[in-house]
Amino acid sequence: MSSLIDPDLLFPVDERTRSVARSLYGEVRNLPIVSPHGHTDPRWFAENQPFPDPAQLLIVPDHYVFRMLFSQGVRLEDLGVPTVDGTAVETDGRKIWRRFAEHFYLFRGTPTRMWFDYVLSDVFGIDKPLTPANADAHYDSIAASLATDAFLPRALFERFNIEVIATTESALDDLRWHKAIRDSGWTGRVITAYRPDSVVDPDFDGFHGNLDRLGEITGCDTGSWSGYLDAHRARRAYFKGLGATSSDHGHPTAETANLSDSAAAQLFDRVRSGKAEPGDAALFRAQMLTEMAKMSLDDGLVLQIHPGSWRNHSASMFARFGRDKGFDIPTRTDYVAALKPLLDRVGTERNLSVILFTLDESSYARELAPLAGVYPCLRLGPPWWFHDSAEGMRRFREMATETAGFYNTVGFNDDTRAFPSIPARHDIARRVDCAFLARLVTEHRLGEDEAREVAQELAYTLAKKAYRL
Amino acid sequence: MSSLIDPDLLFPVDERTRSVARSLYGEVRNLPIVSPHGHTDPRWFAENQPFPDPAQLLIVPDHYVFRMLFSQGVRLEDLGVPTVDGTAVETDGRKIWRRFAEHFYLFRGTPTRMWFDYVLSDVFGIDKPLTPANADAHYDSIAASLATDAFLPRALFERFNIEVIATTESALDDLRWHKAIRDSGWTGRVITAYRPDSVVDPDFDGFHGNLDRLGEITGCDTGSWSGYLDAHRARRAYFKGLGATSSDHGHPTAETANLSDSAAAQLFDRVRSGKAEPGDAALFRAQMLTEMAKMSLDDGLVLQIHPGSWRNHSASMFARFGRDKGFDIPTRTDYVAALKPLLDRVGTERNLSVILFTLDESSYARELAPLAGVYPCLRLGPPWWFHDSAEGMRRFREMATETAGFYNTVGFNDDTRAFPSIPARHDIARRVDCAFLARLVTEHRLGEDEAREVAQELAYTLAKKAYRL
Amino acid sequence: MSSLIDPDLLFPVDERTRSVARSLYGEVRNLPIVSPHGHTDPRWFAENQPFPDPAQLLIVPDHYVFRMLFSQGVRLEDLGVPTVDGTAVETDGRKIWRRFAEHFYLFRGTPTRMWFDYVLSDVFGIDKPLTPANADAHYDSIAASLATDAFLPRALFERFNIEVIATTESALDDLRWHKAIRDSGWTGRVITAYRPDSVVDPDFDGFHGNLDRLGEITGCDTGSWSGYLDAHRARRAYFKGLGATSSDHGHPTAETANLSDSAAAQLFDRVRSGKAEPGDAALFRAQMLTEMAKMSLDDGLVLQIHPGSWRNHSASMFARFGRDKGFDIPTRTDYVAALKPLLDRVGTERNLSVILFTLDESSYARELAPLAGVYPCLRLGPPWWFHDSAEGMRRFREMATETAGFYNTVGFNDDTRAFPSIPARHDIARRVDCAFLARLVTEHRLGEDEAREVAQELAYTLAKKAYRL
Repeated sequence: MSSLIDPDLLFPVDERTRSVARSLYGEVRNLPIVSPHGHTDPRWFAENQPFPDPAQLLIVPDHYVFRMLFSQGVRLEDLGVPTVDGTAVETDGRKIWRRFAEHFYLFRGTPTRMWFDYVLSDVFGIDKPLTPANADAHYDSIAASLATDAFLPRALFERFNIEVIATTESALDDLRWHKAIRDSGWTGRVITAYRPDSVVDPDFDGFHGNLDRLGEITGCDTGSWSGYLDAHRARRAYFKGLGATSSDHGHPTAETANLSDSAAAQLFDRVRSGKAEPGDAALFRAQMLTEMAKMSLDDGLVLQIHPGSWRNHSASMFARFGRDKGFDIPTRTDYVAALKPLLDRVGTERNLSVILFTLDESSYARELAPLAGVYPCLRLGPPWWFHDSAEGMRRFREMATETAGFYNTVGFNDDTRAFPSIPARHDIARRVDCAFLARLVTEHRLGEDEAREVAQELAYTLAKKAYRL
Repeated sequence: MSSLIDPDLLFPVDERTRSVARSLYGEVRNLPIVSPHGHTDPRWFAENQPFPDPAQLLIVPDHYVFRMLFSQGVRLEDLGVPTVDGTAVETDGRKIWRRFAEHFYLFRGTPTRMWFDYVLSDVFGIDKPLTPANADAHYDSIAASLATDAFLPRALFERFNIEVIATTESALDDLRWHKAIRDSGWTGRVITAYRPDSVVDPDFDGFHGNLDRLGEITGCDTGSWSGYLDAHRARRAYFKGLGATSSDHGHPTAETANLSDSAAAQLFDRVRSGKAEPGDAALFRAQMLTEMAKMSLDDGLVLQIHPGSWRNHSASMFARFGRDKGFDIPTRTDYVAALKPLLDRVGTERNLSVILFTLDESSYARELAPLAGVYPCLRLGPPWWFHDSAEGMRRFREMATETAGFYNTVGFNDDTRAFPSIPARHDIARRVDCAFLARLVTEHRLGEDEAREVAQELAYTLAKKAYRL
Repeated sequence: MSSLIDPDLLFPVDERTRSVARSLYGEVRNLPIVSPHGHTDPRWFAENQPFPDPAQLLIVPDHYVFRMLFSQGVRLEDLGVPTVDGTAVETDGRKIWRRFAEHFYLFRGTPTRMWFDYVLSDVFGIDKPLTPANADAHYDSIAASLATDAFLPRALFERFNIEVIATTESALDDLRWHKAIRDSGWTGRVITAYRPDSVVDPDFDGFHGNLDRLGEITGCDTGSWSGYLDAHRARRAYFKGLGATSSDHGHPTAETANLSDSAAAQLFDRVRSGKAEPGDAALFRAQMLTEMAKMSLDDGLVLQIHPGSWRNHSASMFARFGRDKGFDIPTRTDYVAALKPLLDRVGTERNLSVILFTLDESSYARELAPLAGVYPCLRLGPPWWFHDSAEGMRRFREMATETAGFYNTVGFNDDTRAFPSIPARHDIARRVDCAFLARLVTEHRLGEDEAREVAQELAYTLAKKAYRL
């Protein structure tokens, strides 16, 4: 543990509870990292080339970082965020780094601050917090580290004690980097996950072309409903061949449908032929979740649903900077009516695993825990995105545990492409869970021996079980 | 207090606050139980026969228990839950009990775990937590107890120090068991409550036949609006005669209506004649809440509204196992628009008492506390169902008190048919309230003498006042 | 600090955390009060006449007070609340005061209780809590104080250490009292704010006459869209001349629109000519928020949006007692879709400041923090109305900080017309913020030096910056 991260970080201040938390944490802190869902780039591990400069590694691609600076008047161009049309942006990593350092105080009280301190100290061995005054020195120190073999992607993977990490690839991806990793002889376990949004969502940019491409790749007739479904089956099998144990679906809502085969085929025909009526796109997405669940029954892939983000909320920012630029805003999300069609079809299957996520915390106690607490196919994913935070994780345990228990949850997802922050994220989750368990112990709601078992499950075992790893 | 329940259960760990909590709790822990709303079976107290085997008593009828096991892959048949069509299910109590014991770890962190430990230790005098290894011994021990006079329903009622308990009966119930209790000379106070859903909700199974039956019972013409209302008046009077002080209404939403008499009569005619239009069923339920409120003005029955549960969410499970099998899921519930028609009609009446419940905690601070904090007829029921839990009760006090105060709440409801757990449930509510009050005291927000008064009100007095007991 | 308010009020009980909280608070407790949004009467400061009797000052105008008593059966007439039609109500201040004293226990656990104790002790130097027994003595003591020069409005203003206070005036107000203050030579800084609801909301009582009047005052043609907009520009300039730095908008929802100029003009014509179609009133309000934002870009006024209150929920109480009588109930409020049109138009402007408020706490983490954490024009107003409370402020920090940080919030608003309670309200906000920061410190999430800086910002600096004071 380094000087920027206190050994008691996030533990309850009461000495008795803190002492229990320390003890529980002591037994899980060094467990291997199981990262069953995230967005790291498999190319890193395939090529094992040095990471770029500190700003390109830690600032430019991190939407948590640049959205906060943008909210306080810093232009994305000045942070090096690339434009869609190639208009020039800042390319001097050092200048970007200085701008970040000047605004670092904005992150007080946020998880980004905690992750950043952790990366500085634990990954790069820097023991002074970032300030405008030491920005250059820190930059140089990190840049020097990145040039060494110890900071190559595979070396970090091993140092981070990652047992397995899942990336996420589009249904159309050729998975070349995953093949390259497999062919390289390196033993790090990097697996893919099947993300078919681009060929499932009629509102996705280039949907029709994507379906044509899906047909080419698979040799299936994606002009027909049955050929289209076969194409999915083929791609899922291909993804499984490169380690995938799950599919992942990012939809605006959690709506599902349970149409008859003929109604589904007619819907597909309308959507595919460009004759979609209002509501058809949403209905098609909804039906496809159920189709995916049915395929999961056959091939065993775990189904993840990540609903409720209003993507690209600012049209002008989307036009200038493209997707994933901090303008995805959570929305109120219903699950009870939305999931019923899927649950009516497959809800009581005991060999199906559907993991639900939310950006709407009001659904934890009201909808998600009651659903997961009875339907055998349902599990609750960990707090996601803006809620992947100390307070967010605490609220999740407080609101979900009493109805769903611990064992209908699936451990932690880091869900990130910020590779250096992965140990920080898992460590914080382990700390928050141990803090929660410690409170249960000191309030005499759980025996300490039981808490010890649960801590182990939350930090390691449940993720492996739920994701079939 | 037994060995499975720590004397400091649920008290804040900070020693100063814990000490205040202990002191407050010490003065309320032995107060009689007032149970103004629940689902125990009056037949138990009428016949005073031994309870059945441990599994039939504690596992088979408890939806909290079997829904959790089902969520983790245990079949309801294997837990002895009876099927609608009579297909055979497990009948061996010991086998059911063992299955439960094997899965008991699933309940860590849940209220069920706390209630169960409490029942084991306080009711049955068992001082070892349930494990697969001791499952048989515990089973035998409980079975032996149940065969003794000390565990007959009336003996437990007295040992539990129940001052009064309300059951809930359908409007069509003949209340024979309540009459039998009254006629028996036993002095335990077991009263009924008027639950007319089956004759108020046009979507209820057998609604038309139910109305015919209502007419037969009362001698009123339930083919006409005025006769139908008279029939309700007659039944309410009959229920009052057997102790009822309240009616109870389980509706999908909190919607109310305030139709003119002629519009209401026309609506009734459409509903009664099978010519209901879309929306009529909901409108009829809505209007009936207002009609019940108007009758309450006359006969003094307290009106309870329990809205927002999506009953029987799984059609297949409903078909196989029937109602109340753990597939009732909370939904987002509006109160501000929904209650306005009723409140426009009777909201400022000072002799009316309407008790509002919710399964949507987001309404506590936003809607329910502001409404109850101004309308004289409104009171807030305690946290209900999935929220009848330590964290749920804490959130209720934290979110409702600042706007509604303590005195617009009504104390605790156990709302259960799990008779042996009633002392546990009331004890937990008393502990959580004392813990909340203790924090107010140590944060200097309330004097300790005042906290003492409030603790008494929350544990005992408010329930008697609000339910007119 | 007086005897009714403990020096450690609202600080966490844990000694280490409490000690940090004390230390942080010690440095901000005596900072001047910046009150950028509220409802005090400028006439008080213009005329500097004694406040009326204790009941007329502290009970009769305070909706927090009389709504709670009404909820428990006290008639508003008996509390001296004036009727619309002039029907006589209680005028004897002492009797009103006694009624309040008899029911004072109802406020246990509420902010009103805390504010009242604070006012008693800190403003009036009374060191015994109010009881029915001492009600008369307290009344006499307060009345005696009010008759002295030290309790005149300007003297209290100075004693309260108010650096600046904003009142809120209708767009049609002549601001005579503000002019009188300015002309008086008194140096207290009392500024106005532009509240145009009465000429922006077609559903407002007297809307058409209000527009006529707006035309007369400004000499603009409020029969045309362009003249109407010019009239707003003229009034905003006039308000700015009397110190205004902000406008304020109380709408039923947060809906905004971004119509073309011609569509907006046509909408105005329909609304102005009495030919409004269903939805036009809402659309007009929505469009006007965007128009106001565009004007803010020109004149620099900060735009405040206070949405989501269902005003005058009880028609009968509104008919008898008029507006602002405790019958305004929060409703579920959407921001993500609602604000998009305005944000599409001006959302990325860095010279615009839009401050968002809510009565729907479920939007903090889900919608408001994510929006304010990326759009440079957005800031989050403090917890409002029912949520201006210790628990409400704590929840706000816990739910908003991790995504929006501290620096996208704007410090505290007292938002009150209860002048004597202003120091109490600011003091409580400072205490709660210091308590929250102290927890971050003892959980090692923030350095104590940083917490010290943030405490200063939250208590003083952010309000000045955000409101351009």
